[in-house]
Parts: sequence; structure tokens; C-alpha cells
Amino acid sequence: MQFQRIDGREPRDLRNIRFTRGVNRYAEGSALVEWGETKVICTASVEDKAPAFLRGTGTGWVSAEYAMLPRSTHQRMQRDISKGKLNGRGSEIQRLIGRSLRAAVDMPGLGERTIWIDCDVLQADGGTRTASISAGFVALFDALRWLRAEQKISSIPLKTQIGAVSAGKVDGVMMLDLCYEEDSRAEVDANLIMTGDGSFVELQGTGEGGVFTRAELDEIVSLGWDGISAIHKMQRECLELTEEEKKLFLSC
Amino acid sequence: MQFQRIDGREPRDLRNIRFTRGVNRYAEGSALVEWGETKVICTASVEDKAPAFLRGTGTGWVSAEYAMLPRSTHQRMQRDISKGKLNGRGSEIQRLIGRSLRAAVDMPGLGERTIWIDCDVLQADGGTRTASISAGFVALFDALRWLRAEQKISSIPLKTQIGAVSAGKVDGVMMLDLCYEEDSRAEVDANLIMTGDGSFVELQGTGEGGVFTRAELDEIVSLGWDGISAIHKMQRECLELTEEEKKLFLSC
Amino acid sequence: MQFQRIDGREPRDLRNIRFTRGVNRYAEGSALVEWGETKVICTASVEDKAPAFLRGTGTGWVSAEYAMLPRSTHQRMQRDISKGKLNGRGSEIQRLIGRSLRAAVDMPGLGERTIWIDCDVLQADGGTRTASISAGFVALFDALRWLRAEQKISSIPLKTQIGAVSAGKVDGVMMLDLCYEEDSRAEVDANLIMTGDGSFVELQGTGEGGVFTRAELDEIVSLGWDGISAIHKMQRECLELTEEEKKLFLSC
Amino acid sequence: MQFQRIDGREPRDLRNIRFTRGVNRYAEGSALVEWGETKVICTASVEDKAPAFLRGTGTGWVSAEYAMLPRSTHQRMQRDISKGKLNGRGSEIQRLIGRSLRAAVDMPGLGERTIWIDCDVLQADGGTRTASISAGFVALFDALRWLRAEQKISSIPLKTQIGAVSAGKVDGVMMLDLCYEEDSRAEVDANLIMTGDGSFVELQGTGEGGVFTRAELDEIVSLGWDGISAIHKMQRECLELTEEEKKLFLSC
Amino acid sequence: MQFQRIDGREPRDLRNIRFTRGVNRYAEGSALVEWGETKVICTASVEDKAPAFLRGTGTGWVSAEYAMLPRSTHQRMQRDISKGKLNGRGSEIQRLIGRSLRAAVDMPGLGERTIWIDCDVLQADGGTRTASISAGFVALFDALRWLRAEQKISSIPLKTQIGAVSAGKVDGVMMLDLCYEEDSRAEVDANLIMTGDGSFVELQGTGEGGVFTRAELDEIVSLGWDGISAIHKMQRECLELTEEEKKLFLSC
Amino acid sequence: MQFQRIDGREPRDLRNIRFTRGVNRYAEGSALVEWGETKVICTASVEDKAPAFLRGTGTGWVSAEYAMLPRSTHQRMQRDISKGKLNGRGSEIQRLIGRSLRAAVDMPGLGERTIWIDCDVLQADGGTRTASISAGFVALFDALRWLRAEQKISSIPLKTQIGAVSAGKVDGVMMLDLCYEEDSRAEVDANLIMTGDGSFVELQGTGEGGVFTRAELDEIVSLGWDGISAIHKMQRECLELTEEEKKLFLSC
Repeated sequence: MQFQRIDGREPRDLRNIRFTRGVNRYAEGSALVEWGETKVICTASVEDKAPAFLRGTGTGWVSAEYAMLPRSTHQRMQRDISKGKLNGRGSEIQRLIGRSLRAAVDMPGLGERTIWIDCDVLQADGGTRTASISAGFVALFDALRWLRAEQKISSIPLKTQIGAVSAGKVDGVMMLDLCYEEDSRAEVDANLIMTGDGSFVELQGTGEGGVFTRAELDEIVSLGWDGISAIHKMQRECLELTEEEKKLFLSC
Repeated sequence: MQFQRIDGREPRDLRNIRFTRGVNRYAEGSALVEWGETKVICTASVEDKAPAFLRGTGTGWVSAEYAMLPRSTHQRMQRDISKGKLNGRGSEIQRLIGRSLRAAVDMPGLGERTIWIDCDVLQADGGTRTASISAGFVALFDALRWLRAEQKISSIPLKTQIGAVSAGKVDGVMMLDLCYEEDSRAEVDANLIMTGDGSFVELQGTGEGGVFTRAELDEIVSLGWDGISAIHKMQRECLELTEEEKKLFLSC
Repeated sequence: MQFQRIDGREPRDLRNIRFTRGVNRYAEGSALVEWGETKVICTASVEDKAPAFLRGTGTGWVSAEYAMLPRSTHQRMQRDISKGKLNGRGSEIQRLIGRSLRAAVDMPGLGERTIWIDCDVLQADGGTRTASISAGFVALFDALRWLRAEQKISSIPLKTQIGAVSAGKVDGVMMLDLCYEEDSRAEVDANLIMTGDGSFVELQGTGEGGVFTRAELDEIVSLGWDGISAIHKMQRECLELTEEEKKLFLSC
Repeated sequence: MQFQRIDGREPRDLRNIRFTRGVNRYAEGSALVEWGETKVICTASVEDKAPAFLRGTGTGWVSAEYAMLPRSTHQRMQRDISKGKLNGRGSEIQRLIGRSLRAAVDMPGLGERTIWIDCDVLQADGGTRTASISAGFVALFDALRWLRAEQKISSIPLKTQIGAVSAGKVDGVMMLDLCYEEDSRAEVDANLIMTGDGSFVELQGTGEGGVFTRAELDEIVSLGWDGISAIHKMQRECLELTEEEKKLFLSC
Repeated sequence: MQFQRIDGREPRDLRNIRFTRGVNRYAEGSALVEWGETKVICTASVEDKAPAFLRGTGTGWVSAEYAMLPRSTHQRMQRDISKGKLNGRGSEIQRLIGRSLRAAVDMPGLGERTIWIDCDVLQADGGTRTASISAGFVALFDALRWLRAEQKISSIPLKTQIGAVSAGKVDGVMMLDLCYEEDSRAEVDANLIMTGDGSFVELQGTGEGGVFTRAELDEIVSLGWDGISAIHKMQRECLELTEEEKKLFLSC
Repeated sequence: MQFQRIDGREPRDLRNIRFTRGVNRYAEGSALVEWGETKVICTASVEDKAPAFLRGTGTGWVSAEYAMLPRSTHQRMQRDISKGKLNGRGSEIQRLIGRSLRAAVDMPGLGERTIWIDCDVLQADGGTRTASISAGFVALFDALRWLRAEQKISSIPLKTQIGAVSAGKVDGVMMLDLCYEEDSRAEVDANLIMTGDGSFVELQGTGEGGVFTRAELDEIVSLGWDGISAIHKMQRECLELTEEEKKLFLSC
């Protein structure tokens, strides 16, 4: 096929992706993901307190925050605190990360605790939100392991594995896992967050200057699911699952 | 069929919807939408200046803001300004409204102007974002008419008609246009924004405590398109299109 | 008489004023006032908690907030939250509304509760603060009725009826109830807030570029009292007082 | 007469008042006022730029800011910046000071300049706003003198002398110039800002838990005018007017 | 010696310094310092509550805040609240004042209380932070006396006397106590905070465009200690120590 | 010697320190420093614009920002933007970094540009400010090289090499380069910032609950200079200086 992506990939190819666990010595779970040139550091912090609206319910919460270092981008960006307000895009992304990772956890099983997932982008080359969710899941699972090791919970309250990827249409070609340059030229851009058995936790498709048909939506979903399956496999390998944990992942 | 929704509707039914134009005497375009018990007032304000990143390009912009009156909800909410920051949910919604309505306009045809779409929720009973987009389109079209009537532009730079609706799964039943009580119980919740010819401008599906399959996604899309077709018709009637404008809507 | 106001009124005339109750399905009391082209929606929300400085005193509070929709004015205004601070004028007005409506209520009779009066200006053509106070009184009274109907209080703790109007000197002529265009040309501008028996709760007179004499103050007060008497009557009619309530209004 | 005020004054008495000019070596005008135990330092700063809305009109502006030192009050107050927002009361007061002092100046004669009046309360014992206006006038006049001495303007653009005082009803007795303890017990509280010839620039009367009649308003005005006449005299003496300036004060 | 400083002083000379106690009638301690043309008013306010991190420890805290009046400087500065954030320099200075004055107090002896030291600069001519610390000590000591007089503590929990001064190199000459014009030309600028027995509580030396050697550091320290000894003496005289207190100062 | 530090070091030992350049693909200069368990990523971003106060002077500026990731510390910290204000400690540190690095650059030689140094702490174990300055210098030098390579400047405007280290007294022992646990127990804590020839750019010594004598200051300075000499060597090695650059470092 003559078509060639900017970085030489085929349309269905993911970039080179590497998850590294344990990159922060204080956090109950942490993971650095290098996803092509996108680099995000995720930490999972356990707080022994649920948010106010859950007090007394015996139920916990997962909350996410997302930010970019000022020079994670081609041009240096001003920090939120210098501008005095949370950036709208960042606010939207951290809400998405939080919703996606809450789907992974059985909240009554977590008990009245909050797990904070902090996603800080060291370098951005497209796909920072899907990289954050995918690495956030790894950090989150390690925090759940820590809770059991500390005997604060009796079993790991995992509901499902969560992975995420982007897909879109660039110059008329449907492709998986857009880098920044592709993303900024895309006519259609979608983010898919899916469970281990291929169900959606969240699907966001946006026509960026363009629109998309139902047939194109189907194509995006197929591409996405292939990509997420591969991500799921990398997460499991990186997590070095015990036999017992493997069963947990299979059954959920 | 025995199944009955809270308000007696069938799963495929929209609520009673009424658009009223010209509800604000100063705005270049305005519309009040009463969508069941949800009430949103949308104004379109023309500013003779494009945002900084477009200066000198001859190209315009559509920007949206969304807010809820404090007692638009069951419990009074504190105003954003009292809390000192823009509410994350509101920020996410106004970004969605802006993206959706920008798809309706040919920006070079608009020229270096900004059209501000303000969506203020007087009363909320679910579906405020899709009501805002649908009524925002009406206000926006009237502002484009105003620009031509004032001879600031030579033709109406409409790219496509935009309508929006929600759909979701409640108590295991897939249904269209959720009211608040349904929405707060929903396992899956989606917002669809579509053009006159049935393409997507934006699709957001979220598992709220649950997940959804590809088959369910298909069902949501079918329900949604039926609903949006009806919304599109109401918008056109309310706009009292001239013959020339009808052609414009058909061709775009 | 040759003199003619912008909108054809005589100097002593009020604009057409209409109060509509029950415009919000969630609020314990609500009223829309259409006062010429000025339109304000007021809601009264009951909170079962007094402000911190009253805790433990058995005494309640009435607190007001005032805001304008961005396109309530000729030129679109930026929202407070976008500018990051409460507008000084708005802050001054909501303090005035709060003080004025607190005069209507016997606070020990209210008990340790707060009634929030939210005044949101849909369209502004002068006199928004007096319209807010006058319609706020209607919403407030309905909230007091609700408290008694809910048997949270045994009798309606009304101290007095409150109405408000503006008056001023425009082009050398003293006149009642200034619309925006008159207000912006006024040499003297006053706001009067009065009780059912013609006493002042608040009187604010301001020389706008001009000054005013004691004789002119007297004239303003006479004009204002005539106007407020008419407002008081409209409030009572709109409230559809029972015989018992009529006695309450008479006696206070 | 048996009636005795807290500090031994008669109802018609002002407290001991002393204005001291030139208390700040950098400001173009400055005055410290010691008004009983209330102490306010006012500076007038000339900026060679008018606010945005006046650019190109040849016309200037007077703008005021008001703040209290944290321990100017019985209990230490948190600073505005620590709370992150301008205090509503302070915002209302500085708007009043600004409006009042703008009445003193012929703005075209000032030219495209801003005079900033900063009123910082060192110690508060009631009447800080009227003390600020009265001392602000002194600082303002010295700044106008400076402008002429610097030959930036050819004559002093004074329209009128401005003085201010409070009056109110305490324990059923009408009295002039309330100290804090009287003020916090007052049933009626008024602030009067008047010109050299006894016209009002601003009049604000508030029923604090009470109301007031037209007859009581008349009494307040009479008391106030007596007090302001005395203030005017002190201002003139403190300003050490030249013969030419005395004529200016007489004629305006 | 031919060398002459701007204001005629010798390099080793302090400016004229005067401390005045009791300048605020409400504060538990207060002092005005006039240090050449620099004037700072310091109040010490006792709060019967320790900060959150000390609750339940039986230990107290000293906290400082520092601000400048808008026209304390040659050019009027905008207030922090108008800019919406605490000025970085001010934040740094108030942290220094707090650290320095905490060194003076035995915190367990103070008990679970906070003493707030507010330093408000009326006029700035260099050395405002050292003037604030030196006068803050005086206000603080009076607040400690007040606590004992009120029998809230049984003895004055003084650990040491604290004084502060600046020194630096200007035009190649090492000198004590820089005024603003010297400070803005200085190659090296240092602030020394020292105890009664000549130990350092804090030492900050900064090359302002220049650097400094160890030998120059020694010279700065010698100059500084001479200056602080004189400050200490003035503080003690101003405090009118009793015999018992003199012993306390000697022994600590 | 029997004395042993927490991590087995001798009092005069630095921790293991490693600088890695080029860790950010977009920045004009970047360095990661791993300093024991402290990890800071520094980027240098060139902006072709000087701050407002330098416009038109032909002179540039170096500005620093410092922040900690939320889980860089033992306990997760809230982000500044969530609290709505810049942390006082962070504000003080970024001012110190900026002053220190400005000493390295000949500003007229830089031209009207700003170099932004962003220091983001990934993991904190004491000494983050000195690590930031030391790694910031490396990033800064690479940005200067980039400017010359791009022919925006004709020679590298280096004034001097800058290195920094902490020293202090812990449990009565004077030691170099405190880790967090030592720092939190320290009686005296100092930060030294020094040039290539052993002059001070900045020296900050603080008695933390204690005080320090002149003799102890001397000891701190000796310890510090030894440490900084070693840091300087590591910076030069990491920078892989050309022969020409070595001369530049020697001569400055």
C-alpha cells in the first residue's frame, strides 16, 4: 500500500508504547507511559477519606487530575495558576479520566476511601488523555494491590480492565492512534475507552471541521477495539499478574 | 406494551418541545426552548472581532457559554462566582456547545467576527446540553440573518443544520430523551449531535456505572437519529424559512 | 402639557408592570416581573440553616444575589466568572436587595433558616434593582407561605410589605420610574424602598453629574411614594391574598 | 437635658475632628483624618491616563479605593487577598467615595488624567466612609493644586466643595455622627454627602431593623447639614486657602 | 573622609529611627516605626486558636502578614486584591517576618494561640522588611504582656529579643541600612535578623547584578551586628521594661 | 568517626547526583537532575520578547517558575490551581531561582528575549531549590547554545557558572546537602548559590527553631563551597563543553 503516515506507520498501527511501573517512591501506585513521543507520569494516591457526598455510605471514589508541564508542548504554555483558572480543556480531560477509571473499581469494595489519580504530561505528541487513562489504570491497580497488602481491604475490588486509544480520519484515511500532527489535521477524532470484554465505558467522537457517518463510526470502533486489545495486553504484562490476579482479570 | 416511563412516554418519544424566537430585544438572535420541564434561554451576540488566534485570517468564530441559574435545580446551587471558579461540568458543556455550533457555520463566510452563544438554564430537568445546542442553532441562524440584513455579509454562511438529543439505557430499557429522574438512574447515557443529512458532529456515550456494547451503541444511534430528525423539523418551522432559505437548508 | 417622555409617558407614570408567580417549579417561591422592557426572574429558596453568625440564636436570615445575563444589555457583557470577580455594581445591588427584603421578615419568627432571593435579570431597561426588590418580595412571601404549609412555622412572620421604585431628574424634569435611556441622561437618580404604611426602608439619592436640593428631594419622595403605592397594590393582587393574609398585610 | 450619648456628646455634636495634610511624601495630595477614634489616611495619586472608556475624549476621572487594615477593628479581620475576593461592603463604599468626589471636579478641566483616591482605615470607630470622603476631598484638592503648580492645567477645575457626615436614630433619639457602638445599635442610619451650598451629592438612608418616616428624614437632613457645614469649614482651614482659592470655593 | 551618602550619613550610620507603641486602640500590641522616611505600622492580634497543624499539641504560633498601602511608593501600586493575587515579593517578605518573630517566642509557653503580626507599610524608603521585623517585635512583646496581664499565661514566653537591619555594597562601598535610592543601586544587598546575644536567626545576602566574596560577607555581618545592637537598645527603651522584664531580656 | 547520617553518608558528602540533558524534545534546553531521591525536570524556553519593563532597552531577562507534582511528596499535596492561589513557599523559591540564574547571563548580550526556566519537581527528598538552580543552569546554558546555533546571537552571553547546595546543622552536627528527614530535624538550614570563582550570588541561612553563630556561618560556608565546587564539575562534564566553551567558563 502506498499510503504512508508521517512516522511511517500503517493506518492500523499503534505507536511504540512502554509502561514503566513504580516510578514514584511515595505513591501507592505509579506508572510512566511513553507512547511514541507522548510521555505521561501517573500516580495513584490513597486517601483514607471519601468525598463529602459519600460520607457514611461505606463507598469510595476515584478522582483524577490532569495537567501539562509548561513545556510539554511545542510552544511553552502558561501555567493554570499564572492565569488564575483551570484550563477548560484540562478540566474536561480530567473529568473523562475520572469517569473512565471509576468504571474499573467496585466502590463498596474499596470502602470509604479516595484514590487520586494524578496525570502529569511531561511531553505531549497527541493522545495524552488516552495515554493517561491507560497508564492511570496501571497505577490504580497497584494502589489496589497496596490496599490489600496493607490489609485494609480483603480482596482487590476490580470490576474490569480499562484501556483507551484514539482513532480518526486524516486526509480522508481512517487511522488508529493519532500523533499531534495527525490530530491537528484530522477531520474526525475519536477517543474510545473500553473494558476487557470489549464493551464501551466511554466513546467520544468529534467532527473537527468535518462530520462522520454511521459507517465511519463503525470503522472507528473496529480500529479502536483492535488498538485497545493490544493496550490491555501491555498493561497486563507490565503489571506482572499473579495467577490469582489473572483469574480476576479474566472473570471481570 | 406494559413498560411505562415516569412521565407516561413510550421509549421512543420525545418530550413536548417548543422553541420561541425573539425573546430578547437586544440580541441579534435569541430563542427560548421549553423541552418538557427543561427551559433554556439562548442568545446569539455578534461581536465585530475574531479571537486573537484568528486575527488577520479573514475567518470568524462561534463561542459558547453555558450556565445554570442557582435555582434551576431541585436544590439551589451556589453561583460559580461565589465559589470563585467555573464549574467543571459547565466548562465541559460549553465546550461541547461551541464545537457543535461551529460545525454549522462556514467561518471564512462569516468574516472576522465572533458570534457568542449564551445558554442560560432557567429550569433543568435533564437534557440541558442538547436543548442548548438545539436552541442555540436557532439563535445562531437568526444572527446570521441579521448580519446579511445589515449587509455585513452577502450570503448566509450556513454549512449545515445542527440538532441534538440524548438517549440512554434506564432500568435495562433503551430510551430517547431522558428527563432528570431517568438520567440519574441511567446505566448508559449518550448525547448525539447531528447534521441535516444524518451525519454526526459529535457523539458522546458514557457508561454511568455500567458499560455498553456495540449493539447497544447501534440502538442508541438509531433512537437518536429519529429524535434529531424531529428536532430539525421543529427548528425549521420555528425559523419560518423563506423559499431561498429552505434551499440553503436542503443543499447543506 | 407639551412635555413628553421617550416612551410617551407622563412624568408621574409608571411603565406597564406585570408580576407572574410560580415561574419556577423547584423554588419555594418565584416571580417573573416584566417592568416595561426590564425583565427579572426572582426565586426564593429555603435553606434549613442560618448563616454562621446566627447559629444557635433561633433567628433566621434573608440573603440576596443579583446577576445579569450576558445579553440582558445592549452590548453583551462578560460574565463575572470569566472576569474572575464579582462586579462592583452587582455586589452593591445585591446588598441593597438583601437589606430591603430583610425588613419584611420577623427573623425570630422565621427560625434558624436562610431564604435566598436570587434575582437574575433577563433583560435590562433601567430599574433592575427596584424591580428585583418588588418581585423578590412576591417570591419571598410565597416562600413564607410554603414554610407554613409545610408546618415548619406556625404563622407567617411578615413584618411589612416592601415595594421599590426609582425616580429622578432628566433634562430638568422630575419623573418617576426611569427607563435606561432616561437613567443614562439623568442629573439626579434615586431609589426608594418603602413599607406598606409609607415609611422608608431605604432611600438612595445620587447626583449623577449634578446635585439636588432639599426641595427636589421632597419632590422625589412624593413621586416615589405614589409609585410604590401602585406597586404595593399590584403585589397584593398578584399574590391573591386570603382574607387572613389581607389582615396580616393591613396590620403590619 | 438628661439624655447623654456614650461619649458624653449632645445629639447635635460632632466628635473631635482633625485633618492633617501632607502625611505622605510621595502622593500629589494626602490627608490623615482623626475623627474621634476613627483614623483614615487618604492619598491622591495623579496618573497621566484616563480610564479606557474616556480615551480620546479630553476628559478625566476620579477613582477611589477603600480598605481597612486587618486590626482597624475590634476583632482582627482577614485581608481581602487572603479570602480571595473584594469584600462586598468595601466595594460598595469605594463606589460611594468615587461618585461623591467626582462631583467635586470639572472633568474636562482635569484633562485625560485619573486621580486615584486611596482611603485606608487605620482605626475604625464608625463613620469611616464619611471620614474618607471628607479627607479624600482635602487630598484631592491638594492634587489639583499640584497639577496647576506643575503647569499641567491652567486653573483648578473645582466644581464644588464636598463634605460628608452620618446621622441616625439610636434608642429613639435622632443624633449626628454615630460612633461604632451607636451605629451598631441604630434603628436608622444615614450618610449625607453635600456641596458647599447645601445641595446633596448623595443621600443614603437605611432602616437597620427599623424604618423611618418623612418627618424623620427631614430631621436627619437638618442634622446632617449642620454637621457638614462644620466639616466644610474645617476642610477650608486645613487647606490654608489663598485669597484666589477662597473665591473659587465661594463661586462654586 | 570624602565619601558621602545621599542623605549625608556615614557608611556605618543608621537613619533616624523612632518606635511609638500603642498606636492602635484595639490591638493587644502595636507599634509604629519611623525609620528615616520608611513608616510601618505593626499590630499584634491574639487569637485563641492555633493553626490546624497544631491543634491538640498545646503549642502556639506566630503568623505575619505584610502589605504596602498603594501610595507607599513613588509610583502608586495596584492593590493585590485588584490584581487578584498576592504579590510574590510580599509573600516572600511575610514569610521572613513570620520565621523571624517565631524565633522570639517559646511556643509551648504561648499555649494553643496564634499571634498575628500585621505589618502595613505607610511609606516605603527601603528597609521595610527589617523595619517590620524590628517593630513587629515590639508589638509582639506587648501582646505577650497583655496575655499575662489577662492571666491567660503565667509568665512571658520570651526566648530572645529580635532585631533586624539591612546592609549592602553601593558604588563599591559597604554600608549599613540602605535607603531606597541606595538599595536600587546596590551591587549587594543583605538582611540580617539577630538575637540579643548576636546569633543569627536569619541571614539573606543577594548579589543584585553583582556577587560578593567571603570577605565581603564578613564585613556585612560586622556592620549588621553594630546596627542591630543599636536597634535592640531602642526596642528596649521604647518598651519601658520593668526590672523583672530586664532580667528576662538578659537571660534569654 | 562514629557519627553516621541516615543514609550512611559522612557529614561532608553530597548524595549521588546525576544530570541528564535533552530530556524534553521541544525545549531549547532541558535537564533532569536526580539528586539522591530528589528528582527535578528543568526546561529552558526561549521567548522572543522581553518583559514589559525592558521593552526597548535591548536587554533580556531570565524568569523561573517552580512547582511540585502533587505526589512528589510523602503525602499528596493539593495543586495550586485547586486551592486557587500560588503557594507562598513555591513563590519564594521561584523568585530565588530566577535571581540566581539571572546572575549567569549578560542581559544585553541576550537581547530582548526572555528565557523561561521551568522547574517541576517529580519527587522531593530535600534540596529541591538547590537542585532546581543547578539543573536550571544546565538547561539555561543549552538554550544559550541554541540561540547562537540559530544565529540569533553572535556569542554566548555567559557571565558566570552557577551552582547551589544546601548545608545545615542536624542534631548538633554541621553537614552538607540535607535530605528531607535531616532537613525536617535541622536546627539551622542554609542554601548557598555560588559562582565559578567561589563568590556568592545568594546566601540564605535560617535558624529553624534554633539560631546560629558567626563561627557556624563560617563552617556552613566552607562546607557549601566544597559541595558547589563538585556540582560545578558535574555541570561542566554533563554539558560536554567544547574547547572554546571551556575558555568561556574559565574566563567568567
